[in-house]
Amino acid sequence: MALKEQDKSSIIRHSLAHILALATKRIHGPRVKFGTGPATENGFFYDFELPRPLSKDDFGKIQAEMEKIIKENIPFREKDLALKKSQDFFKKAEQPYKLHLLKTLAAEGAKKVTHYQLGEFSDLCTGPHLKKTGEIKIGSFTLSKIAGAYWQGNEENPQLTRISGLAFADKKALKKYLAWQEEAKKRDHRKLGKELDLFVSSDLVGPGLPLLTPRGSIIRMELEKFVIEEEAKRGYLRTFTPELAKVDLYRKSGHWDHYQESMYPPLNIDGEEYVLRPMTCPHQFMIYNSRPRSYRELPLRYAELARQYRKEQSGELSGLIRVMEFTLSDAHIICRADQLESEFRKVLELVQYSMKTLGIKDYWYRFSKWDSQDKEKYIDDKKAWDDTQSSMKIILDHMKLKYEEGVGEAAFYGPKLDVQLRNVNGKEDTAITIQIDFAMPGRFNMHYTDQHGKDQTPMVIHRSSIGCIERTMAFLIEQTAGAFPVWLSPVQVKIISVGKAHVKFCEKLANELTENNIRVETDLENETVGKKIHQAITEKVPYIIVIGDKEIKSGKLSVRDRETSPSQQTGEKTRNIKKTKFIKEISEKIKNRK
Amino acid sequence: MALKEQDKSSIIRHSLAHILALATKRIHGPRVKFGTGPATENGFFYDFELPRPLSKDDFGKIQAEMEKIIKENIPFREKDLALKKSQDFFKKAEQPYKLHLLKTLAAEGAKKVTHYQLGEFSDLCTGPHLKKTGEIKIGSFTLSKIAGAYWQGNEENPQLTRISGLAFADKKALKKYLAWQEEAKKRDHRKLGKELDLFVSSDLVGPGLPLLTPRGSIIRMELEKFVIEEEAKRGYLRTFTPELAKVDLYRKSGHWDHYQESMYPPLNIDGEEYVLRPMTCPHQFMIYNSRPRSYRELPLRYAELARQYRKEQSGELSGLIRVMEFTLSDAHIICRADQLESEFRKVLELVQYSMKTLGIKDYWYRFSKWDSQDKEKYIDDKKAWDDTQSSMKIILDHMKLKYEEGVGEAAFYGPKLDVQLRNVNGKEDTAITIQIDFAMPGRFNMHYTDQHGKDQTPMVIHRSSIGCIERTMAFLIEQTAGAFPVWLSPVQVKIISVGKAHVKFCEKLANELTENNIRVETDLENETVGKKIHQAITEKVPYIIVIGDKEIKSGKLSVRDRETSPSQQTGEKTRNIKKTKFIKEISEKIKNRK
Repeated sequence: MALKEQDKSSIIRHSLAHILALATKRIHGPRVKFGTGPATENGFFYDFELPRPLSKDDFGKIQAEMEKIIKENIPFREKDLALKKSQDFFKKAEQPYKLHLLKTLAAEGAKKVTHYQLGEFSDLCTGPHLKKTGEIKIGSFTLSKIAGAYWQGNEENPQLTRISGLAFADKKALKKYLAWQEEAKKRDHRKLGKELDLFVSSDLVGPGLPLLTPRGSIIRMELEKFVIEEEAKRGYLRTFTPELAKVDLYRKSGHWDHYQESMYPPLNIDGEEYVLRPMTCPHQFMIYNSRPRSYRELPLRYAELARQYRKEQSGELSGLIRVMEFTLSDAHIICRADQLESEFRKVLELVQYSMKTLGIKDYWYRFSKWDSQDKEKYIDDKKAWDDTQSSMKIILDHMKLKYEEGVGEAAFYGPKLDVQLRNVNGKEDTAITIQIDFAMPGRFNMHYTDQHGKDQTPMVIHRSSIGCIERTMAFLIEQTAGAFPVWLSPVQVKIISVGKAHVKFCEKLANELTENNIRVETDLENETVGKKIHQAITEKVPYIIVIGDKEIKSGKLSVRDRETSPSQQTGEKTRNIKKTKFIKEISEKIKNRK
Repeated sequence: MALKEQDKSSIIRHSLAHILALATKRIHGPRVKFGTGPATENGFFYDFELPRPLSKDDFGKIQAEMEKIIKENIPFREKDLALKKSQDFFKKAEQPYKLHLLKTLAAEGAKKVTHYQLGEFSDLCTGPHLKKTGEIKIGSFTLSKIAGAYWQGNEENPQLTRISGLAFADKKALKKYLAWQEEAKKRDHRKLGKELDLFVSSDLVGPGLPLLTPRGSIIRMELEKFVIEEEAKRGYLRTFTPELAKVDLYRKSGHWDHYQESMYPPLNIDGEEYVLRPMTCPHQFMIYNSRPRSYRELPLRYAELARQYRKEQSGELSGLIRVMEFTLSDAHIICRADQLESEFRKVLELVQYSMKTLGIKDYWYRFSKWDSQDKEKYIDDKKAWDDTQSSMKIILDHMKLKYEEGVGEAAFYGPKLDVQLRNVNGKEDTAITIQIDFAMPGRFNMHYTDQHGKDQTPMVIHRSSIGCIERTMAFLIEQTAGAFPVWLSPVQVKIISVGKAHVKFCEKLANELTENNIRVETDLENETVGKKIHQAITEKVPYIIVIGDKEIKSGKLSVRDRETSPSQQTGEKTRNIKKTKFIKEISEKIKNRK
């Protein structure tokens, strides 16, 4: 059902590309040269060579012409032509790009091609299209962008003009998308990160190397504290392992063969090759291997907040997501085969608890399998893959977990359960993974002595609890639009003085709250209260306390809550509350991570 | 006074080298060829070419002969000779190494040389020596080592035999030194690190890249928590900045010119050169520079637990001290000139408080200055050095701080106050530094607006609070011989069951202590209580609780304290204490970092 709807909107979008082409031809005449015009994820575009440069100012006229074409209810007529006939047609029409396409088709051995005729515009295209233009709803689409685009994406070809549009099933859906896009722009973590002074970047340091300011660092430390506390409760042991290691280590682990393209180049130090680690697993395995292990010690759950280095396209580096180094809430559970299922279940419980604590509700699971064709990415051992994948399937089915399947999404050493979510731009992202590893315990000769005194190879689960700290921060910024829950807010309470007479009281109050482990800032500047409140609202502080004569006399605090406001803005409503009660209230929230 | 004593023991040690040479000559005859024989820090040595190989088995005979020479009370006779005469003498005596020395002296233009005659042994030497051998106390020295040593330390020269000895003012001092050396061996943090399972190393990962086990990680986390808490109280703000940066950043900071030999080679990533950071300063300065600053914001105290990378000789990498990467409890205080002194004072207070908390009493200060001759290491700006050093001297004098001076020990960008201590091997080490930086604020165009709206350049203090975490851990391991104070102990309480009937009670008790944030381990194995206690003693656990029928009946815990034992071993004495009282007692210690 979902798929059919998607097909339908793809047909609408594709048809709109033709309508755009026809409208452009009508307005700008026979000198327009046509490139191609496909449907896109949320709309369509067409590339043109135009007799004169256009701008967004021309959109009104083009859009009006498109709507006219829709009202004319013109049919799309399909017609098969011999290649030669098509060539003659476009030669006559002086359409060099279409001729270029035909040349390619001819080289591929095509004898026939399909044309679509829409009124006076005939396009080389295989469809499918709508039957008639009248099927499109006026108001369901809009032109959105004009930009240069090289013919066939090749910089050595001529640059054409690409006119793009957005198109949805109806006017309401389009409006919703536009509003959401507007909101996404506002919520972009790079924008908010700067506005709320959470992190900065520096050309001198480099792209993809964000620097967390004191405010951003508070969020990070709260997240780390959560991970450490929660993992301790669940029996994890912590490690600190180095970020550099000999290349030899990754030769042995298999990273060098299967993961090298994601690794930075090696460093030659005094004749030995070292590399920045892309993963923590082999490091923690060295701790496991540092002494003999007994079956009674297992499971061993080694956790680390591990800085890692994986190569990204340098052109794509930005914000907290596309980064050169990141910190993973990592762990490796080394267990016996009979413990695998219960350990997997416990990991999933921790992941679900983490998502709940972070306020993430919209997520789903993907069972990520190997691609037997991809010999470069994956260890080539069919039996091991089949065994591990079916063990994992049994575990997932026992847990009655619903999941999608993702072929070619596994780690090189085993299948994964991925926790998927959609970021603010609507893109799907993997937040957390739980992996079963059939390869490394053997490669590293990991052993334990079973109850009969025999050597056994343990199983390993690779997992994260809240994923990468940086990425999680970015997600939280976008999800909350910077209005973080109290426990994560860099400043939890802002105290504002009405006048000079109230400064001392404010300072005393601030000290008292600080002593109760509440993060406070005072604004004692010689400004109007309105201006100071406005500033605190901009900073999205959860609680604003204004101190004037009335408050000092009454002994009650006048608190403006961010939460009571529908726009998530602080300070629209005021309530009076005893100081002790307020401290208790906020302390509860902090303690319970609300 | 102290210096004179040092001179005296140096003279004794030097004289002993001659006595050793004479003894060897007497025993092994005229075929002995003499190299040189100086005093060392704790003794002396002499290098010989011998007619037959010797071993430690020969020490008794040589030592006896040396004592005989002392009893003979032979005088050291000084005599100046023309170079030519000396050459004739050693040619006749067939002493090629002495002739080699004379050749060098001749090349330097020497006309005369000094000989010392001790009985039948005449040595080329400038002294000074004792008047007579009888001044040395029998029992104050001992031969200690025999090893190969290339003539003049050059591998291309012949290998001689070096016989070394230890020598002190008297028998008591020698005994003390030997006992201390024995103890130092036991306290070596590499040895204890392995025995107590605090950290491991791996050939596959590489030398100087220790991996902290769960136990070692607990100590590290406690130290980090202390730093974070204490710095928060003192108004520091935390940052997280990247460990990689463009080489450009360090070109601008001056590291590339003055500190490159301590940096790892750059990484070329997509055509851009990056390098692992040797210091945090330029990173934190980028945060300062990310927006305009007002005089009212200063001082800004940016702190970070910063992983850093400085090159060590790979042959010297080992343990937690000579490492390829380390974590500095780093901070940079950006302040106005009028705040410099009070900020410096506050930093020193924090350092003193940290040393006290870590239980380090034996430390002293060194005022580290530039070496105007070392153009490579230091920024060449005499006026800036003079100004900053005299500002720093004024501050130190105002604080009435006693200090040594260390020329050529400054950072490349300014003078330092170093906190010096002696490690378990008696070597002096810098634990913590406080630096005043005259260079980087200007290089990075750091500014603030003063109260008149004018641009000003701030001052910067670079400082650490507990130094490098790894090095501090090593120091604490050696200082406590692994018997850590309660707050740092990986396991604070060990609960031992007498029999099977007591297992449940032990588990319940363990849970209760854990809920009170006490780190507990149980030993419920089917072993004798004696063996289990012995194991806990080996692990240097501060408290051992044994649970049997008596304890369950009486409702009191039977606790064995490590502290009450003079040998710092747990479990020699037992006391009975109510559970609630015990929890309170230990919680107090943890809270107060005892």
